[in-house]
Amino acid sequence: MKLEIVTIGTELLLGHTLDTNAAELGRALAAVGAEITRRATVPDRPEAIRSAVAEALERTGFVLTTGGLGPTGDDLTKTVVAQLLERRLVLDPHLLAGIEARFQRLGRPMPELNRSQAEVPEGATILPNPRGTAPGLWVEDARGRVAVLLPGVPREMRGLLADEVLPRLERRLQGGTRRVVRSRTLRTTGIAESALAERIGPIEGEIAPLTLAYLPSPDGVDLRVTAWRLEETEAAARLAEAGDRLRAPAGEHWYGDDGADLAAVVLDALRRGRHRLGIAESCTGGMVAERITAIPGASDTFIGAVVAYADVIKTAALKVPLAVLEAHGAVSEETVRAMAEGAQRLFAVDAGLAVTGIAGPGGGTPEKPVGTVWLAARVHTTTRAVKRVFPGDRDEIRRRGAQAALDLMRRVLAEA
Amino acid sequence: MKLEIVTIGTELLLGHTLDTNAAELGRALAAVGAEITRRATVPDRPEAIRSAVAEALERTGFVLTTGGLGPTGDDLTKTVVAQLLERRLVLDPHLLAGIEARFQRLGRPMPELNRSQAEVPEGATILPNPRGTAPGLWVEDARGRVAVLLPGVPREMRGLLADEVLPRLERRLQGGTRRVVRSRTLRTTGIAESALAERIGPIEGEIAPLTLAYLPSPDGVDLRVTAWRLEETEAAARLAEAGDRLRAPAGEHWYGDDGADLAAVVLDALRRGRHRLGIAESCTGGMVAERITAIPGASDTFIGAVVAYADVIKTAALKVPLAVLEAHGAVSEETVRAMAEGAQRLFAVDAGLAVTGIAGPGGGTPEKPVGTVWLAARVHTTTRAVKRVFPGDRDEIRRRGAQAALDLMRRVLAEA
Repeated sequence: MKLEIVTIGTELLLGHTLDTNAAELGRALAAVGAEITRRATVPDRPEAIRSAVAEALERTGFVLTTGGLGPTGDDLTKTVVAQLLERRLVLDPHLLAGIEARFQRLGRPMPELNRSQAEVPEGATILPNPRGTAPGLWVEDARGRVAVLLPGVPREMRGLLADEVLPRLERRLQGGTRRVVRSRTLRTTGIAESALAERIGPIEGEIAPLTLAYLPSPDGVDLRVTAWRLEETEAAARLAEAGDRLRAPAGEHWYGDDGADLAAVVLDALRRGRHRLGIAESCTGGMVAERITAIPGASDTFIGAVVAYADVIKTAALKVPLAVLEAHGAVSEETVRAMAEGAQRLFAVDAGLAVTGIAGPGGGTPEKPVGTVWLAARVHTTTRAVKRVFPGDRDEIRRRGAQAALDLMRRVLAEA
Repeated sequence: MKLEIVTIGTELLLGHTLDTNAAELGRALAAVGAEITRRATVPDRPEAIRSAVAEALERTGFVLTTGGLGPTGDDLTKTVVAQLLERRLVLDPHLLAGIEARFQRLGRPMPELNRSQAEVPEGATILPNPRGTAPGLWVEDARGRVAVLLPGVPREMRGLLADEVLPRLERRLQGGTRRVVRSRTLRTTGIAESALAERIGPIEGEIAPLTLAYLPSPDGVDLRVTAWRLEETEAAARLAEAGDRLRAPAGEHWYGDDGADLAAVVLDALRRGRHRLGIAESCTGGMVAERITAIPGASDTFIGAVVAYADVIKTAALKVPLAVLEAHGAVSEETVRAMAEGAQRLFAVDAGLAVTGIAGPGGGTPEKPVGTVWLAARVHTTTRAVKRVFPGDRDEIRRRGAQAALDLMRRVLAEA
């Protein structure tokens, strides 16, 4: 089934509120097989709400709204939708008693304003909202078109969605064959979007009717494959097959699926090899260690890190020879190798990871422009060092540097 | 002037991506006095993009789109909009040369796919995008209707908006009386939302007609004051006045306005006192150093950090006496004081900052539950240590710990 979402609230258009409901609705509805074909955000104005809801009903016959159900003057959704579906608003005594009881529990008199929250379009199904005063509403018109009205407060919206809306949608969908929308993501790093597309383009047709999206970020390019409106087991089988097909051309750049975190992948590989890790960072300033320690239980494998920001710390703590620094500079293969070795020695571990570079905006030279980063991963007595030149601003160069450092360790461990 | 926004991307509807562009566009456009009357999100399908853009142009004559400008097969915006506005796509040799040069700088051949990014609707104004390969486009049709096409990558969108789109809009708007929506944010930390509201409640009426919003996050509570549709100089004057009124009750918890970053505030204070900083972190795993080094030019003040994750590093690198660790544990006042002193000594600096705690999910005890964090800031020979017990999950406890560490140093420096 297809449906549209209308999000109501001037605050959302002004950008003072981030619309987290939208993403949550998207995930939850896709999971039960409902396809959102459009989402509109409109201000708290009756004519704007009216036209957006009317158009959505025209196109799909099913609209879900969030927001505009509160007790104040800018809460208009219920009135507008009732008019549109030609239903009168009637006072529901049950609802009114519930709202009065709620205020009694809080030890406050019920403001007259809240009485309007007990009015519902005639014939509507009331979706109880134990988390707030505004109930959700499920309104169906004579032509079978449905408008579901939910409050905009994320906690209340989420509760009503899970408790009331999704079960009803699933029942509706069980009549026909239940079709779902399912995605799988292959995560890659160290390869540009267009280079990845050149590798994958020739086989892109083979995964049809599944669709493929390239999602680039400073961490790499995610490949998201989506199965649309297929029966559940078929969707799973096709996604598995598509994943296998895409993994081959992605090659060594693929490091995991779905929510895989490269730091967790590296930590797991270190554990499997019974390695312990020490880190030496310069331009990334602690970001590599921060990513490793974000993972619960990292302390069994990660011993420590030095952020050797000043060169004096590279020589004092990491024992990078002063002669190396003077001859080759802080951003060089020789220095990064000595840093990895120094981390290994300082933390008395068998795996050392090091990164040094120029994150900018200052400090670049024609030979070593901003974005130049040297990385080294050392396991036992073998060191692998690589140079990368990253695009972007300081933050992006640092993020790319941290990700590339983790990726280098992943590759070295895979070959060991 | 009124305009509509069309956000393009199946990912956004599926809820895999949070639409941060939407909020950013809302704030920026409101600030120059443009009113967003609707925002629509549509999937990467030509007919969906076409109808949303056509309807928006019909209603307001001005549409701004984000997304769908990349080099791959799911990037359709330019083609669809060109058809809709009856413009052919033509290859721009200048753009092509720029894209080729970009790949050359990165030392990689340009994939053939990227060539399509140099095609533009005939007569369109090209908005240069130094942050990526897809330029923005400003396309005007024979009837004076305008479509502005921006890439969806937030960093690129933001740059094009500020450098190219807002100046053009401001020129268009200079005709009528210009009313603006302006906000100012006061940033606080170390005080709960409800405690702050108790302090501020009594004077909240004094800032009318400006409105006040409390925005809590793991970093603290931001106070956002907004002036709605006032003439520009009046908005500025009222915001300045409201800021002054609110700063008094916020007291020592206030650390800066608008985009102020606590790490930058601390770095500035260190510079003013000609201090140099060394850091010792345990549970935050590099996050404090990462935040300091995110600031360009930090290297003049920040020397280095040790992430002493294993206790053996606390004794070996930071010289925390084994007896202290054994008697009081790694998460204790005695240990955190010794860590701050150790950082001062190891990095040969006059300012040492240390944090040690239990980020969870494991490791808590009845006496030291998950969330217990000890912090110490040492300047010259004076150390101040505090204990906090933070709510939230591992990530939130770490973020709160890093913020509290920076805040402790800010307060110690303010008193020095």
